[in-house]
Parts: sequence; C-alpha cells; structure tokens
Amino acid sequence: MDFGYSERCEELRTRLLAFMDSHIYPAEAVYAQQMRESGDPHFDAPVVAELKAEAKSQGLWNLFHPDDRYGAGLTNAEYAPLAEIMGRSPVLAPEACNCSAPDTGNMEVFTQFGSEEHKKRWLAPLLEGTIRSAFAMTEPAVASSDATNIEMTMLADGDHFVLNGRKWWTSNALHPNCRVLIVMGKTDPEASTHSQQSMMVVPIDAPGVTVVRGLPVFGYQDREGHAEILFEDVRVPREDVLAGVGKGFMIAQARLGPGRIHHCMRAIGMAERALDLMCVRASTRSAFGKPIAAQSNIADWIAESRIDIEMARLLTMKAAWLMDTVGNKGARIEIAAIKVAAPAMALRIIDRAIQVHGGAGVSDDFPLAQMYAHLRTLRLADGPDEVHKRTIARYELGAHAGG
Amino acid sequence: MDFGYSERCEELRTRLLAFMDSHIYPAEAVYAQQMRESGDPHFDAPVVAELKAEAKSQGLWNLFHPDDRYGAGLTNAEYAPLAEIMGRSPVLAPEACNCSAPDTGNMEVFTQFGSEEHKKRWLAPLLEGTIRSAFAMTEPAVASSDATNIEMTMLADGDHFVLNGRKWWTSNALHPNCRVLIVMGKTDPEASTHSQQSMMVVPIDAPGVTVVRGLPVFGYQDREGHAEILFEDVRVPREDVLAGVGKGFMIAQARLGPGRIHHCMRAIGMAERALDLMCVRASTRSAFGKPIAAQSNIADWIAESRIDIEMARLLTMKAAWLMDTVGNKGARIEIAAIKVAAPAMALRIIDRAIQVHGGAGVSDDFPLAQMYAHLRTLRLADGPDEVHKRTIARYELGAHAGG
Amino acid sequence: MDFGYSERCEELRTRLLAFMDSHIYPAEAVYAQQMRESGDPHFDAPVVAELKAEAKSQGLWNLFHPDDRYGAGLTNAEYAPLAEIMGRSPVLAPEACNCSAPDTGNMEVFTQFGSEEHKKRWLAPLLEGTIRSAFAMTEPAVASSDATNIEMTMLADGDHFVLNGRKWWTSNALHPNCRVLIVMGKTDPEASTHSQQSMMVVPIDAPGVTVVRGLPVFGYQDREGHAEILFEDVRVPREDVLAGVGKGFMIAQARLGPGRIHHCMRAIGMAERALDLMCVRASTRSAFGKPIAAQSNIADWIAESRIDIEMARLLTMKAAWLMDTVGNKGARIEIAAIKVAAPAMALRIIDRAIQVHGGAGVSDDFPLAQMYAHLRTLRLADGPDEVHKRTIARYELGAHAGG
Amino acid sequence: MDFGYSERCEELRTRLLAFMDSHIYPAEAVYAQQMRESGDPHFDAPVVAELKAEAKSQGLWNLFHPDDRYGAGLTNAEYAPLAEIMGRSPVLAPEACNCSAPDTGNMEVFTQFGSEEHKKRWLAPLLEGTIRSAFAMTEPAVASSDATNIEMTMLADGDHFVLNGRKWWTSNALHPNCRVLIVMGKTDPEASTHSQQSMMVVPIDAPGVTVVRGLPVFGYQDREGHAEILFEDVRVPREDVLAGVGKGFMIAQARLGPGRIHHCMRAIGMAERALDLMCVRASTRSAFGKPIAAQSNIADWIAESRIDIEMARLLTMKAAWLMDTVGNKGARIEIAAIKVAAPAMALRIIDRAIQVHGGAGVSDDFPLAQMYAHLRTLRLADGPDEVHKRTIARYELGAHAGG
Repeated sequence: MDFGYSERCEELRTRLLAFMDSHIYPAEAVYAQQMRESGDPHFDAPVVAELKAEAKSQGLWNLFHPDDRYGAGLTNAEYAPLAEIMGRSPVLAPEACNCSAPDTGNMEVFTQFGSEEHKKRWLAPLLEGTIRSAFAMTEPAVASSDATNIEMTMLADGDHFVLNGRKWWTSNALHPNCRVLIVMGKTDPEASTHSQQSMMVVPIDAPGVTVVRGLPVFGYQDREGHAEILFEDVRVPREDVLAGVGKGFMIAQARLGPGRIHHCMRAIGMAERALDLMCVRASTRSAFGKPIAAQSNIADWIAESRIDIEMARLLTMKAAWLMDTVGNKGARIEIAAIKVAAPAMALRIIDRAIQVHGGAGVSDDFPLAQMYAHLRTLRLADGPDEVHKRTIARYELGAHAGG
Repeated sequence: MDFGYSERCEELRTRLLAFMDSHIYPAEAVYAQQMRESGDPHFDAPVVAELKAEAKSQGLWNLFHPDDRYGAGLTNAEYAPLAEIMGRSPVLAPEACNCSAPDTGNMEVFTQFGSEEHKKRWLAPLLEGTIRSAFAMTEPAVASSDATNIEMTMLADGDHFVLNGRKWWTSNALHPNCRVLIVMGKTDPEASTHSQQSMMVVPIDAPGVTVVRGLPVFGYQDREGHAEILFEDVRVPREDVLAGVGKGFMIAQARLGPGRIHHCMRAIGMAERALDLMCVRASTRSAFGKPIAAQSNIADWIAESRIDIEMARLLTMKAAWLMDTVGNKGARIEIAAIKVAAPAMALRIIDRAIQVHGGAGVSDDFPLAQMYAHLRTLRLADGPDEVHKRTIARYELGAHAGG
Repeated sequence: MDFGYSERCEELRTRLLAFMDSHIYPAEAVYAQQMRESGDPHFDAPVVAELKAEAKSQGLWNLFHPDDRYGAGLTNAEYAPLAEIMGRSPVLAPEACNCSAPDTGNMEVFTQFGSEEHKKRWLAPLLEGTIRSAFAMTEPAVASSDATNIEMTMLADGDHFVLNGRKWWTSNALHPNCRVLIVMGKTDPEASTHSQQSMMVVPIDAPGVTVVRGLPVFGYQDREGHAEILFEDVRVPREDVLAGVGKGFMIAQARLGPGRIHHCMRAIGMAERALDLMCVRASTRSAFGKPIAAQSNIADWIAESRIDIEMARLLTMKAAWLMDTVGNKGARIEIAAIKVAAPAMALRIIDRAIQVHGGAGVSDDFPLAQMYAHLRTLRLADGPDEVHKRTIARYELGAHAGG
Repeated sequence: MDFGYSERCEELRTRLLAFMDSHIYPAEAVYAQQMRESGDPHFDAPVVAELKAEAKSQGLWNLFHPDDRYGAGLTNAEYAPLAEIMGRSPVLAPEACNCSAPDTGNMEVFTQFGSEEHKKRWLAPLLEGTIRSAFAMTEPAVASSDATNIEMTMLADGDHFVLNGRKWWTSNALHPNCRVLIVMGKTDPEASTHSQQSMMVVPIDAPGVTVVRGLPVFGYQDREGHAEILFEDVRVPREDVLAGVGKGFMIAQARLGPGRIHHCMRAIGMAERALDLMCVRASTRSAFGKPIAAQSNIADWIAESRIDIEMARLLTMKAAWLMDTVGNKGARIEIAAIKVAAPAMALRIIDRAIQVHGGAGVSDDFPLAQMYAHLRTLRLADGPDEVHKRTIARYELGAHAGG
C-alpha cells in the first residue's frame, strides 16, 4: 500500500493551495458584496471572470478532464485531492477552475458521446468557460430514487423526437451563461428496463423549453440556480441524440462515477473548511473564563471531526483508485458507499462548526450555513442515501449469504 | 398523576385546531404568493391582518397572557398545548393569535415591570396587535452563552442613560410594524455579577438607533427579521428603565422560563407537522414497486419520531406544570432540559421528513427546510445547548456527589 | 395535568427508599460473597431469604399485585415508581419484595385465569415467596418477533394434551425454588391466527420436561437462570389449560402490558443507579489535574443522561396511567414506545457510566456491566425493538395518512 | 496511491484464510466443549496446542515480529491485514499463530530492550510458544488515562529495586503457562514527568507477587485472565531493569504503536465476522412472511456496517503505513484516531448483529456477546477514548489556530 500522492498531484496541490490563498479566499467577500449590490441572485459577478482568467493563466484549468487533449489528463485518484481543495470555497473555486458540476459531467459526456458538431458547438466553449450547461434528469412527479420512474416522453416523429415533460433540480440552468441542456427521457417505455431512456442535447432557448422557476435550497437562491423546466412539444433532431437511442441509462451510469468522486471530495473540502473555522473560532472566543477550545466537549468535536474526515477521505480516494484500476463497475459498491458517507460526515462537522459559531454560524457571515444547505441536497441528489444503502446491502448479502 | 388536559385547555385546543384547519393552513399558500409578489421579505402581507381579525373575533387572541385582565389567563400547562398547535404553522399562526415571540415576552415584561406610561404607550397597542416590538440582548462580539459578557454600556448622565453598543439577532426589528425595543446593557460593570445589567425601553426611531442589516438564517430573510442594530449615544430617560437600575438580569430570568416553554412547544408542533407530512408523503410516493411507507427503514423513522415527540412533549409539559406549581426557579433544571431536548428532537424529525420528500423537502414547496433553519437557531438562541447542559450537570453533580 | 405521585405511592416510595438504604444496598456485597463462595451460580444465597423476611415484615411485599386481596392493590401508575426503585438493585430488590419477573406475571395470570386448584397449589406459595415459577414461550428455532411462529405442539389426547417442543430463555427455571412453568404452544395450527395458541400449567418435574442447559447472558449465569427446556411427550390434563383452549394469545397480551411497565421502570431505576455511580466516580477521580467531573465532555454525558431518564420515565408513567384509565388496548402504542425507548436509554447511560469507571466498569466491582448485559436482552425479549417500531409506525401511518 | 496489498502480504493472507477455514473455525466448537467440560475458565484446552503445532508447521507463526531473525519480518502495513484475519476468531487464532497480546508486545520489548539473558530465558520460549507473559501497568487506585498517575514504587536498595503496589487488568497472568511479567512503576517520583518510570522483568513466581483474583469482563472469565496482582516488597535485580532506569515511559510509547494497530485490526476482523454472521442470519430467518434480510431497516444496518468497516480499515492501514514510513511519532495522531474509531465501529456492528440474532446473540451460541465484551474493554485499555481525542484535538488546534 501507498497512501502518498503522485508527484504530479502533489505539484498541482501545492499550486492550487497557493491559488486558494492568494486569490480565492480573498475574493469571497468581494463576491458577496457584488452579489448583494446587484440584487440579482443569478448575477454574473465580475470577480468570477477575473478568477477564471487567473486560474487559466496559472494552468489551473480543466483539471478534471481525464483526457489530456482537453484538460489535465489526470487519473481520478490524482484529480480527487484537487477537487477537495476547490471544495473549501465551493461557490468560487470550482467555477474559477472550470471544474464545476454539472459542466464537468456534461463536458465528459460530450467528449465521449458527442458528435463532431456537438464538440464544436458545445464542448469547445464549455472548455473555454464561455458558456455553461445543465443536466435535466430529475422530475418532480416521481421518486428519483428509482431511475426507471422517469416520465418525460421522447416520441419519434420523422427525423425528430418530440419531448414533453417536466424536470426540476436542473442545476446551472439559471446561470446567466447557460446555453445548453442534456436531457434524459424515455424514447421507448416498452423496451427493457435499461434501454427505455435516451439522452438528447437541447439548446436552452429551443422552442417549447420554459424555465418555470428557480428552486431555493433552504432559503438560498444559488447563483447557478436549480430550475424547474417545462418541456412542451420540444423538437429535437435525431443527430442530437447522444450515443444512440436507448443509451440514456448507459450514459447516466458512465457519468455518475466520476461525478460522485468529485461531489464527495468537495464535501470533504467543505468539512475541512468547517473544521478550520471551528478551530479558529474555538481558540478566539471565550466563555466562562477560558477559550471555548479548552472545553473538552468542544475538543471532542474537533477530534471526532478530524477522525471522520480522514476516514471519509480514504474511502473516497480508494473509490477513485478503484475506478482507475478496475473501472466504474468494479468500483460501484465503493462509489455507493462514499455517496452515503461523505455528505453525512460533512454535514455533521459543519453542524458542529455552526454550533461553535453561535448566531454567526447560521448567518451569511461565515460560509457554514450555505455549505450545510448545499450538502443537505447531496444526500438526495443522484438518489437518496437509502438507494445506495440498498445497493450495498444487496451486494453484501449476496457475498456473505451465498445468495 | 394525571396526563389529561384541563377542561378549559381542551376546549381551546378544539377551537384552535378548527381555526388551523379552516383558516391557517389554507392561508399558507396565499401568504407565500403575497410575499413572493411583493418582492420584499419584510412585506406586511394582507392575509396576516385578515387572520388576526378572524382570530380575535373567535376569542383566540392573547392566549399566552397569564393575567386574565390582559389575555386568556391560562396557566403555563394550559397554554403550552396551544403553543404547540400554533407551532404547526409557525410563520402564520402565532402572529395571527398575537402570540408570537418576542412580543409575548415583551408584553409580559411590560405587564410586570412597566410603568403606567409604558402600559399605555406600548403594552396596549401590543395587546391590540397594532404594533410589534423587539428584544435587544445578544451581541456579535462576545459569546452570548455567558450573559456576563454583555458589553453595551448604559452610562448615567443626569436624568438620562446614554447607550452605546452593537446588538444582533434582535428578532422582529425588521417587522414593518415594529415600534419599540427592550434593550439589555450594563449600567454598572463594577457591581456584583448579576446586578451590572439593566433593561430599558427604547423607541426604534430614537436618535442614535441604526438598524444596520437583517441577518439571514440559512438564506432566509424572515419576515419579522433578525436585525443587527447599532446604538450610538442613544439617550434614554430614567423613567424608561424597567424595574430599576441593576434589575436587568432578574427581568431576563423572569421572561426566560415561559419563553422557553413556548419555544419548545412550538418546536414540538413543528415536529408534529413534519411527521404528518412524512407519513402522507411516504404513503403516496412509491419506489421499487411499493409505497415508501412499506419500507421498514422509513417505518422505523416514523416510529422513532412518534416516540421522540411524545417524550419531549411530556418533559415540556412537566416543566410547565412545575413553573405553575413551584415557580421558575424550582423548574429551572427542567427548563434547561427542554431547551436542549425539544429543538434537537424536532430537527431530527424534520431532517427525516426532508429526506422522505427528496428535493421538494429542501425547497419552499413544503415548510420543512424553513422550519429546520428556524429551529437550528433555537439551539443557539438564549444560550447554546452546551450552557444548559452545564447547568444540568452542575445540579446533578451537586445532588449525587454531595458536592 | 398533574405530575405528582399519589399519597399512597409517595408513602410507599419513602418506605421503600429507606429499605433500599438500610437493607438492600448493604446486602449487595454480602450476596456477591455468598455466591462466590458457593461456586454455584444458581445458589440460594441465605441473604436473600433474610431480605425477603424483612421486606415482608415491613409490608413491602407483593406490591405489584393490583388486587388488594393478594397484594398492595395499587394502580399501574402507583406501582411503577416502586418498580423503578427496586430496579436500582435489580438482582436483590425485586425478589426481596416478591416482585420479580416472571413470577409477577405468572401470579397475575393465576389470579385472573387460574382454577381454584391452581390458586391453591401455585398462586398461594408464589404469593408467600416459598416457590418460584417460569414462563416458557420463546423458541430457539423461530424468530420470536412474530408470535405466530411458535412451533411447540399441544395435541389433544383424551382428557390430556401432549406437549412436544423446545423452549429457551425460560427465565427463572434454574432458580433452586422453581416449581412450575406456564407454557405457550399451539393446540390448533388450523385455527385463526390468534386462536391457535393455548397456555398450560406444567410442574417443572413433570415427566418429559428436561432442562437442557442454562443460557449465559454476556458471560453471566444469572441466578434465576435462563433455561433451554425440552418437552418430550409431556402430558398435561385438560384442567391445566388456562382460560380455555385457544386463549393463549389473549393471555399473553393481558400479561404483556403490566410486564412491560415493570421492565421499563426497572430499566429506569438501573439508569438512575448508573447516573448516580457516574456522578460519584467523576467527582472522586482525577485526571490531568482536576476531577473528571470538571471536564465538560463528562458533564455533557451527565446532563444528557438526566434529560433522557426524565423523558423515558414520563413516557412510561403515561403508559401506566393510560393502562389504568383506558386499558391495555388503549395504551398499546405507548407500551410499544416504552419498550423501545426505556432499555435503549438505560443502555446508553450505563455505557457512559462504564466509560467513566474505566476497567472497574466492565468488572464485577460495580453492577454496571451486569446491568448492561441484562438490559441488552430486554431489547430482544418480548419482541425486538423492530417489532414494536413496526406496530407504532403502522398506527401512525393509519392515523396520518388516512390509511 | 496504491490500495493493494504487497505480494508477500497477499500470499500470507491466502494461506492464513485457508488455515482459518480448515482449522480455526472448526476448532471453535471443540474448544468450547473442552473448556466447558474442564470446569476451569483458565484451562489449557488441548485443541489450542494442536492448532499451534499446525500453524507452526504451516509457517503461520510469529507473523507479527518485524525482525526476520525472530519472525516473519513484515512491515506494519503487511502484518496488519493478517492481524485482521486472526481477529475473526479472536480467542483461538492469535494464540494459535503465537500472535496474541500482550505476548507480542512483550516479545518486541525483549527484542529491543532485553539483555542477552532476557532473550535466552524469556524471549526464546515466548517465540517458541512454550510460555506466556503479561504486562503489569494499569492500577486500580488511579485513572490510567493519565500515565503520570502511576503509584507503584520501585525503590533502589543496593543492586536491587524493591517493588510495592497493586496492579490490575494484567492480562494473560492467569494463563496456565504464564511465567513472566513486565512491570511498570516509578523509580524516581522527583524526576521530570516522563523519566519517573521504569520497566522491570519479574518472574510471576517471584516472592512477594500475589495474584489476588481474576477480573471478569462482563460475566466472562477469559482464559488468559485479567489479574489483580499485589506486589509486596518484591526484589528485582538491577539487571532486570529494561533499557535503563527512567526509560519506562519511552518503552511504553515504543510498544504502544504496533500494539494499537494489532488491536484495531483484530477489532476490524471481529466486525467482519459479525457482519458475516448478521448476513447469514438475516438471510435464513424469517419474520412476517419474508427473510429478515428483505427488511430495509436490516439491509440499512448491513450497508452501514460495510461502509463503517471499510473506513476504519483504511484509517488503520494508513496508520500502519505511516509507522512504516515516518515512524511511531509521525503516526501518533493517526494511531490515536484508530484507537477511538475502530473499537467503537466494531461495537456498533456487533451490537446490530446481536439484535439480528435475538436471544442467541447474547448467549454463547455465537461469538458475538463475547466479542462485544472484549471490545468494550478496548475503549478503556491503553487510555480511554477521551484521552486519545484530547491528543487529537490539541494537535488539530495547534495546526489550525496557530496555537
């Protein structure tokens, strides 16, 4: 075994950490003020563009992309520690480095399954960071814990498909630069369970596409936005079906693995940030005549937080390493495991940090409450915890019980 | 022992439950729309005035006031179950019935410690529901877990006191009808620990009072608002000192007991609402071929929620009964206990309900996320959990260990 | 509401507490030495007989019996606080006062459902404390979580029934004075679900009854013993069927309610004992230069323990009060709730007390480890937690979801 | 990063797993019967000698020893997975392979700090498995959480030291083959904190050494025994001081690191065994018409168990790897972390497994209750959890808060 980072990874970590210190953290207050002054939760704050330019100039750009023709060409295990670092400032750092979801997943999908036209029209500007994209899968009317529930219809009509249905939690769709959607629906409800779905590329301004509203998360209207979108007789040319009709489930599976690693590592980064804030606050505030940090109950929280972060990080790194060595499918139990473990761990730690901060913790004076809100959704997105536990238990029962 | 409600209480519960069904729950969507359309988080939505008129006409008004010259004249144990019911719709029902914090506590303080002038100028319109009030105690610079930390100065200057300092989490101060503040500060930092503080009555438009900003709670700008307020050379006449100079700590103690009962019972009401929503959702959504409610893990959550609600309610009712029979002081351990137990319990249940609702749970389509955010602050307000545990442990160690 | 004890209850509590101090606690070490010296885990230690004589002479005898012709004639709500007190020394106090399970349940069954002959032959000496009894229901081969699983056959053969089957966890059967068993089995597997079972009275020395072994509980061979018993062609006369053929399930239900109250209140007594020991230990041991009690993490445990005990006690008392006022059936949800809540709460507290005691806590120098082992079985006996949660959830879902 | 096992480790794992299947598991019932029939909890059951002979012949002997002159010469990261496997049958496998605590630690101490005479007289037969040894550090009168509390005196008297004091939890001292003790005490209470202690070699039959009693763990009298030992004027020659006077604390630190890895990996092995038993039981028992494993609450326990085991194992492996690469001191935070995390994790899983097994789970029909009792002591031995959390928190606060 070897728990060390690769040289390439270590070098990028060093540079990225320096970028966080020199540019990202100082920009947080600037960003907050620009957003507040704009009065628009989806405002394209100028500081973001500046950060993007800086990251690009430093070569901290498209780090996520596993193909070195398009990005850094890192393995999952090499990129994961970088995603963690970006997670420490989740609103700014991932976008600054052009590594924010769901654009990353969409760029990978365009790379793997897109036509030359898709690459030219959508992938290129996404890689440049000049446009944004969204991924429309979840629906309000059915439990998204069970992918076979999807109700959006995609009916063939000549050389087009006609889309009808309602999606929500389409993240990024309210971003001022969002131009394109990848949409999951059913082309053939009679096909076998995993061949009913297809994915199609739909410009956000296509006729029949209506962004109904932005969904708040707790009280936050995130800048990127989580949209409810109505699709009414939206006509999509056949050439905008990704990877072929009936391949929707397969593409969804392909994008899930890396996406979960990224989400979980960012969650770990948020937990590290929260632990850092907790330590600083506990050391600088006093009650009953001594720093809060000298109270053993608070010290216990700090210790438990450190232990829990370490364990969740190792499991996530192992899942990334498995993806690199045995592939998505061979790593599926570990990927399910981190999806359950990492957000829950981070939420526990952020909650403790909030408690140590008192009223300041639930306000916007610290990033804690917003991190909490964001991570709380992660226990629901891409299937709730319960679905992933179900997967793990079935595998375990099969292995142990001779089933 | 007798776990039954009194006849008076039972009668009011029946009427209040009917009012919830006929007026409050139906008004929730109306209120949401009026707020959304106004674009102002502190908008005085017309439906609130209608609800207030209706509640008053039905005699469901000032139920909290223990003195029957001013209100219902109920004991704590009789009012508590009514506070629980109002808690099921926490944004509307308490204000509709003129039973919302911190106005209730302020009205009790004016009743007990106010001059005739205070009663005429502030208590009367508060009882009528025509104005609102706020209570300025917590400060941003010091741990409010330790009341002796308060830094606001109240220096005598002839027949006035001059107030300087910064308060925050002054709830209700952004309510459009808020007119008056009760302010806690230090008149004599050299006096004995519990005689340093005084409470004074300050009109919100007094010269030198500046509402700096409203503090968000997990992204929410609550209608009543949680203000940061700057006091710069605010001159307060001696006759606006409540109960005498140096009596601030005593008044704070007097108001805390009933206030905590009310907060905890509303928390229990929110937990009941969440459990109700969880049961309905689990019965009507299906995954993997059966209603979610048929999954034993979800059923366990429901059972554990029921058990936890029952226990927290009984403890809160016992605290209320103790206040009625042996007084605030004799009930102080139980009051500390419910302050720890009830919000934590309600948060657990609401969190489970969110999980069962999927993405809808964190949005504004259900009241769950907002209840969560509100209750999370309750683990910090009036002293964080840790301070109350400290009180309980000291008492317990004294009792058991002969200390 | 009234959370006070009745006068009768208060008077008995005072006397019983005095008896604990004067006789029971001092006898614990004597008992331990007599048992150790005997080398027999089921030894009838002489100190037990002395305690019984003393309790009887003080009128602290058969307190459990609700019928004043046979015992104290207390309501459930009056007896419950006494069961709690006895629970503080669970090995000695209940037997000293002739209030130990399963004898109490068996005495109630004989009172309600026994023939005159049963009362003379078994009930009378049980009430005198000269013999002991056991209750054979649980079976090793099937999940006892589902009572309909019972496999013991009771086949009619003329004026007898012939019993075949294997029981275990038949508590008390290894007590040196155990003379009689009440046995549950199936007289008619074809009858409706709740009419298949019958209960019969079987002398422990009846031909065909073999006590195979005593089951240890976490290494403990309890004095009363938990027996595995083989029934091979045991012939039981028709007159020893209790309450009639097919009435087994009904009797089981009748005995369960009070039994669970008793178990839960004793669990609460054990938790109180553990909290007491924890406070004393924490006050008298030092680490890192101060008493352990001055560490806020330990203080938090103490506070949380106090809160949890209070809540569990109130719920148990409410269940007892409901049994007194609306009967077993009306109280069934609360009885299920306490069965889940009370043992789990007591285990948490005892576990913390063990931690504070260090190595001494897991040894026999303190009663903690034995209490833990005993209470751990309580989460399994009479149906595991999961079965009771299932009951509660079904009720809740029915109430809320219109199901 | 590389999460794979080394070739050497993989090869030994394969052989050890085969040995577990072919010899250890089948021997468990034989051992239980031999112990039961002997009537002596410390009986040297013949099957143990047979297993030892077999393990030795297969080269599965002294795997723990890092020096290949004495054993397998594995790194910590290579041995750890083997310790885990042995932990699955904790009573038999470690001793069968001559890898049981505290003999392993004692052998390492003799190797590093023993004289040639010590090596000949004690190390050689220990390596052969013909004698056993114990380690006397913990004392009943003081909190062992703070090593500076130790009270045993070791007073110089010519070329001897005279030992007086009382030790307990001296594990292995009741093993029929135990011949020698390593004893920790204070040679100079006036020296600096970490130079007061010395360690000495004392034959168990030395004059003045009295084994007072064996301490039960819950109700278990473990075969190796946990002794309370009285030292009265025990004279120890100067040449039996290990590593020099005042070096006791240093030696204690040196042995702790590997010991904790071993304990934690065995704990993980026990957790794996419990999960295996849980899966098998859940698959083969039915309630309410389907296998327990089909209930999603039980499936959740299985999934959570798998997740928790994986995370604890990775953290322990990382600690082992750090010991190999940066040494005991560089690994001390991770070693503190696993000491907290691994036993707590294993206890949770075993507790769930007990619940799934019903009454059988707390009895001796399955190894679960005994594993639980053993692991519960691990949260106390070598310092309770609280001490290790304190270490971690101090380090974390120093790192984050600039303290």
